[in-house]
Amino acid sequence: MRTKAAVLWGLEEKWQVEEVELDLPKAGEVLVKLTASGLCHSDYHLVSGDIPIPFPVVGGHEGAGIVAAVGPGVTEVVEGDSIVLSFLPSCGRCSYCSRGLTNLCDLGAAIILGPQLDGTYRFHARGHDIGQMCVLGTFSEYTVVPVASVVRIDQGAALDKAALIGCGVPTGYGSAVNTAQVRPGDTVVVMGVGGIGVNAVQGARAAGARTVVALDPVDFKRQKAVEFGATHTAATVDAARELVSELTRGQLADACIITTDVAEGAYVGEALSLVGKRGRVVVTAIGHPTDISISGSLFELTLYEKSIRGALFGSSNPQHDIPRYLELYNRGQLKLDELVTREYSLEDINEGYQDMLDGRNIRGLIRF
Amino acid sequence: MRTKAAVLWGLEEKWQVEEVELDLPKAGEVLVKLTASGLCHSDYHLVSGDIPIPFPVVGGHEGAGIVAAVGPGVTEVVEGDSIVLSFLPSCGRCSYCSRGLTNLCDLGAAIILGPQLDGTYRFHARGHDIGQMCVLGTFSEYTVVPVASVVRIDQGAALDKAALIGCGVPTGYGSAVNTAQVRPGDTVVVMGVGGIGVNAVQGARAAGARTVVALDPVDFKRQKAVEFGATHTAATVDAARELVSELTRGQLADACIITTDVAEGAYVGEALSLVGKRGRVVVTAIGHPTDISISGSLFELTLYEKSIRGALFGSSNPQHDIPRYLELYNRGQLKLDELVTREYSLEDINEGYQDMLDGRNIRGLIRF
Repeated sequence: MRTKAAVLWGLEEKWQVEEVELDLPKAGEVLVKLTASGLCHSDYHLVSGDIPIPFPVVGGHEGAGIVAAVGPGVTEVVEGDSIVLSFLPSCGRCSYCSRGLTNLCDLGAAIILGPQLDGTYRFHARGHDIGQMCVLGTFSEYTVVPVASVVRIDQGAALDKAALIGCGVPTGYGSAVNTAQVRPGDTVVVMGVGGIGVNAVQGARAAGARTVVALDPVDFKRQKAVEFGATHTAATVDAARELVSELTRGQLADACIITTDVAEGAYVGEALSLVGKRGRVVVTAIGHPTDISISGSLFELTLYEKSIRGALFGSSNPQHDIPRYLELYNRGQLKLDELVTREYSLEDINEGYQDMLDGRNIRGLIRF
Repeated sequence: MRTKAAVLWGLEEKWQVEEVELDLPKAGEVLVKLTASGLCHSDYHLVSGDIPIPFPVVGGHEGAGIVAAVGPGVTEVVEGDSIVLSFLPSCGRCSYCSRGLTNLCDLGAAIILGPQLDGTYRFHARGHDIGQMCVLGTFSEYTVVPVASVVRIDQGAALDKAALIGCGVPTGYGSAVNTAQVRPGDTVVVMGVGGIGVNAVQGARAAGARTVVALDPVDFKRQKAVEFGATHTAATVDAARELVSELTRGQLADACIITTDVAEGAYVGEALSLVGKRGRVVVTAIGHPTDISISGSLFELTLYEKSIRGALFGSSNPQHDIPRYLELYNRGQLKLDELVTREYSLEDINEGYQDMLDGRNIRGLIRF
């Protein structure tokens, strides 16, 4: 079939919105008609080269929609089902899935980018096979994905905002609730309050944090963070340290969640300096795949039993947590509407990313 | 009173074993007649300057003995009690002690080195006040310490080997059992199998590890590690990675415990490369107090949810765990005798440290 998709043909290029050929789903796959897709920074990493990828590729890994058709053998969903796409497929059978660590499923880890699970491509254009970001490619009116990436949600769910639960919301919210294990009364610093950070803020508050300091140089983002529950804001690391020290009588923060780019690892060292004894530094961001240096005091790491913890999808479980997050939204306990600063058509995707880079967006949303 | 102690008068100098003046215990303090003291690498850090310290200082922070007298107000122990000294005093009342994190007691964190808790000195010689390593100074026939550093053990306990439970045993054993949270069936790499590392090995085995790889360039230490339960050994990081990959079908280790010096942070990056998804890297060693760089892939930290955790005293609880470890020894479930490669008199302390530096010692023990 023909569909319209945003394709990236090379490094540092613009997204090309064009008609492409899309194959029908093979065994274990699902054809999805997308209703909305979020503009996440990770797709921009493809443009900048921070996440290396074979070109061309259909971008997008945060989407929701309706099942349009299923391939042979698919029994988990039927045509017409409302679904959210998970950027981490989970097979349910590998040694990680079977321990409940479905965000670390063996299917997911190796296939951030490229072809479908059988090694072949569904998208084609200009005589090329086209890969799909995280086997999804949500920057497209239709896409074909593994059923392992599909999470069924209630019929009648808000299929625009639900897209955000495919990546940004769990990655932030879960990093506070699951990875940092925020407890009532804790003091938490969220470093960078964009699309992930504001969700870390609301996760920390949901877990009972007494104090949540939103640390960001961009005034607009700090204001947004307050809307999401931040009790204090700071524009610099030094200001945050002074503030946290004063608020905790010198004990410093229980946790610091890093949602910013961790290029050069600089922020990890700074985050370590913001937390006290048993303080947890959580890294949600994917930096460069090559070795980088974390600058910080290992002396304090041992003497104060600090830890540095990586968080993928906020240690959330796609099949279990995506419907739960949506239910929290339906009950007014999770903010989604406020996340979307502006909506775009697929054609305006480059404008959407420019807004993000200029710090004018918490989350841009493509509505199909 | 007069006593004989090993005093360090300056950087890169030898220990001077000499007669010194020792004050009687003040309020809340205890006079201890030492029976044995372990030669831990941390005291050598004073010599090398890796742990900066005001000189002169009586070294030693791993000791056992008999209460010889108590100061005013001390009710917790009486003259004649058998005790182990904890290098981490715990007050029982601060916000860490009251949560059970007694190894992070506010008394302990700030006072690795120097005077007693009231800011005055008990040791004096050549017209100088002399500090005490970790407020203990176990390289002395007698010492005066805070009662918060004293752990009462059963009368009749082996007061030579018990000294090792003051630092090395819990620091290693606890790093596996508590900090790395080793579980039955796990694969664990112990990086460096000296006095801390062999105890990490026996802790990992006690917790049910299927595979424990002892990684050390020194042949004698690798052999010792096997005696303590290591199932495999490797002389280089590359050899360990190949071995662990083969043993786990590519999943790599569940935990890697670093007991070696972490100067430049180099080993942290290497340890990260030895663990798989949700893999824990535990740092037991105290490196340089200044900022250092950890070289490693943050990409994997997030994508595989790895963590780096500092461990102080193996996250053990001095008052609770020291008697327990001794009971494990009494029941044959914890090796202590095999730890001591050689015994020395206090006069031979410099020879003992030279043996350690030359890789001929797992643990040297001074017997008084």
